[in-house]
Amino acid sequence: MPQCDSASTVLTAYADVPAPVRGQVRDLRIRWALQEIDRDYRVDLLDVFKPRPDSYKAWQPFGQVPAFDDGQHQLFESGAILLYLGEQDARLLPVDPAARWQAITWLFAALNSVEPFVAQIAMLDLFQAGKPWAAEARPSAVKLLTARLVDLQTALGERDCLAGSFSIADILMVTVLRILDHTPILQDYPALAAYKARGENRPAFRRAHAEQLESYASPAN
Amino acid sequence: MPQCDSASTVLTAYADVPAPVRGQVRDLRIRWALQEIDRDYRVDLLDVFKPRPDSYKAWQPFGQVPAFDDGQHQLFESGAILLYLGEQDARLLPVDPAARWQAITWLFAALNSVEPFVAQIAMLDLFQAGKPWAAEARPSAVKLLTARLVDLQTALGERDCLAGSFSIADILMVTVLRILDHTPILQDYPALAAYKARGENRPAFRRAHAEQLESYASPAN
Repeated sequence: MPQCDSASTVLTAYADVPAPVRGQVRDLRIRWALQEIDRDYRVDLLDVFKPRPDSYKAWQPFGQVPAFDDGQHQLFESGAILLYLGEQDARLLPVDPAARWQAITWLFAALNSVEPFVAQIAMLDLFQAGKPWAAEARPSAVKLLTARLVDLQTALGERDCLAGSFSIADILMVTVLRILDHTPILQDYPALAAYKARGENRPAFRRAHAEQLESYASPAN
Repeated sequence: MPQCDSASTVLTAYADVPAPVRGQVRDLRIRWALQEIDRDYRVDLLDVFKPRPDSYKAWQPFGQVPAFDDGQHQLFESGAILLYLGEQDARLLPVDPAARWQAITWLFAALNSVEPFVAQIAMLDLFQAGKPWAAEARPSAVKLLTARLVDLQTALGERDCLAGSFSIADILMVTVLRILDHTPILQDYPALAAYKARGENRPAFRRAHAEQLESYASPAN
């Protein structure tokens, strides 16, 4: 198993999180990438419920996970870490310039043209649930998201992956689409649902997902 | 002036936009970068109020601006385009690996750890204004944003730029902070306000900003 206590590549994750966000925390993206390239890694666990110490904020200024350190560079932001790993291994990012820039463009598109609209639904449903305005705000949020999903499904077309072959763009987009798992929204987009399922069926995803869930201190509900 | 009708580098922008978003549309980020490196560019103008043709969606799947084409690569996403330009010119992205990855990390941080919280305020104030729930949702949104701005100001510290010298990370972060210009929020963060002002005072920013405003068909209010 790539997760290994003596590894020189370190990433941070949470020691425990509430049930609705298990399998969703962004260290999953980096675990998945590292599993794809069989790179050993060590996980430093943080308490999500306690303020982060200044020493951690010097590494990850917003106190979030994942942060990453391979002895060469200290990085944060899942997109930046994926790009960094991609530059080291063609299984994550094609070397051919046209395919490389297509993958990088889709990496940013997943983060900036799709995730904000997906995350807004999760924010309303999971984090602001019960506030009266959250229910009123939801139809507008769904309408904005729907436009993005229609365009994304059209852009994906008949392709298996966003940029020729599997890449960091797919790791990001699949993990973004998974944020909707608490809703039936993706059922209306069969090509996107199938794309997400292809990602989730990759052995590296399954290992990464299992390792993230196993790392949590308390048993799942 | 770098904007030049015979240039081989093309980006897209809107022919006109409502007053509150003038000076905010994301083609500004690319114009600024191109002005920093004195690269000639041509602007293809789109009607923001009309559906985008399929030919444009084949280039920019979500129908937004900016899209970019230099004859070598067709790209979209302001983050991807800035990274692409940065790889071509050390004035935008340092070559030294440590500084390069610091800048790339901050590029992603501007897009993913700051912009979503800033954009939420603009969404509530400008695009959902008048809806009863928008006013109720605002305190939560301000609280989330405040946490990010506190952390960002701490991380910036005494530095002039996010990654040693001026880079694409600053182009992104300054244009993200400008989205708050319709509010007094940044007055509570003097180091961030000064950082934003330093960016806006760069000659390349001023030229880019003036060119964007001049390109709009109707007079400003």
